[in-house]
Amino acid sequence: MQQAIDSVVVETKGQGFYEMTRALGSFVARSGIETGLCTAYIRHTSCSLLIQENADPDVQTDLLGFFRRLVPEGMDWLAHTLEGPDDMPAHIKAALTQTSIGIPVSNGRPVLGAWQGLYLFEHRHNPHRRELVLHIIGE
Amino acid sequence: MQQAIDSVVVETKGQGFYEMTRALGSFVARSGIETGLCTAYIRHTSCSLLIQENADPDVQTDLLGFFRRLVPEGMDWLAHTLEGPDDMPAHIKAALTQTSIGIPVSNGRPVLGAWQGLYLFEHRHNPHRRELVLHIIGE
Amino acid sequence: MQQAIDSVVVETKGQGFYEMTRALGSFVARSGIETGLCTAYIRHTSCSLLIQENADPDVQTDLLGFFRRLVPEGMDWLAHTLEGPDDMPAHIKAALTQTSIGIPVSNGRPVLGAWQGLYLFEHRHNPHRRELVLHIIGE
Repeated sequence: MQQAIDSVVVETKGQGFYEMTRALGSFVARSGIETGLCTAYIRHTSCSLLIQENADPDVQTDLLGFFRRLVPEGMDWLAHTLEGPDDMPAHIKAALTQTSIGIPVSNGRPVLGAWQGLYLFEHRHNPHRRELVLHIIGE
Repeated sequence: MQQAIDSVVVETKGQGFYEMTRALGSFVARSGIETGLCTAYIRHTSCSLLIQENADPDVQTDLLGFFRRLVPEGMDWLAHTLEGPDDMPAHIKAALTQTSIGIPVSNGRPVLGAWQGLYLFEHRHNPHRRELVLHIIGE
Repeated sequence: MQQAIDSVVVETKGQGFYEMTRALGSFVARSGIETGLCTAYIRHTSCSLLIQENADPDVQTDLLGFFRRLVPEGMDWLAHTLEGPDDMPAHIKAALTQTSIGIPVSNGRPVLGAWQGLYLFEHRHNPHRRELVLHIIGE
């Protein structure tokens, strides 16, 4: 058994989806591991990870639209408002999605489905420097 | 250390919960691994995975009822409507639940709690052929 | 490669966040593993796990407030009411958050971000005895 760990920095420019599928595939390929488990982990609590459809971009638009409606800015009962009106909604959206996703690896590739992509889901408006940690174990 | 990987095809027949607990336990048993980590991964973005109560079937009925109310069909602001009125709600429900779940293994069995079952949560109305990937590593 | 598995019992006293960050760090340190993958798994379906901000306690208050509004007690269409008015909402909140979280380990420590903590998120009002399983693999 072998393992590898690396981190990828992503400069986000506002709310939306930043595709990490290529970074994931490249990390798995560099590891030389044919069969195993790859874990993607985001070191933040106001953005998150999501595996979603990578075909029709309208899916991402609608996901953004849904989360903005479900967790709107300006809920007047919020206490944590010091970091701006989008910060607490960002924490809530992160809680409703994922911080960590494990993806099996087979034939040297993550077993993503035909329409699946791995995304960093940014919930803040301002630019942020985000760090994604990738780990793989297998042989 | 050893590992094993396999996939299970599930033919779904509409929205609801399809129990995978037995397939999971059988995969772990066949691997011969006593202690380790088992990962269940679903290769789709309009169904998802969930660990939930396997005792009272009303829990599943109510979960379905809640998700249908939270993400109703017919939201008039949706852009991704080409694949039918249940498709974009299905992507949203998948985003709100899980694509991948890691379950430790001890004494040759997944450490599910007494009332826990692993479910494929289908969000589409029409029949679908779904593929669940199972991976285990340990010894 | 080595691995370790252990479980931690948490006595909860009502809805809220119970920090598990120290228990996680201590488990990783005791394992002697420098690089690897640690998995936290909760054996229940009416509480869950969450990685969230550990700095401003208002974040936890607001998360609680949001989930109570999103999944209120007393929804009159619920069927599973035998175990009390907070039980089915608890299952729904668990479905919306996590049962299992994988965290890479580097330099003998989980790679939690500067503001990240691991929490048991209790959704029931009455005291409960909860069991968290921790597994680590690496070297």
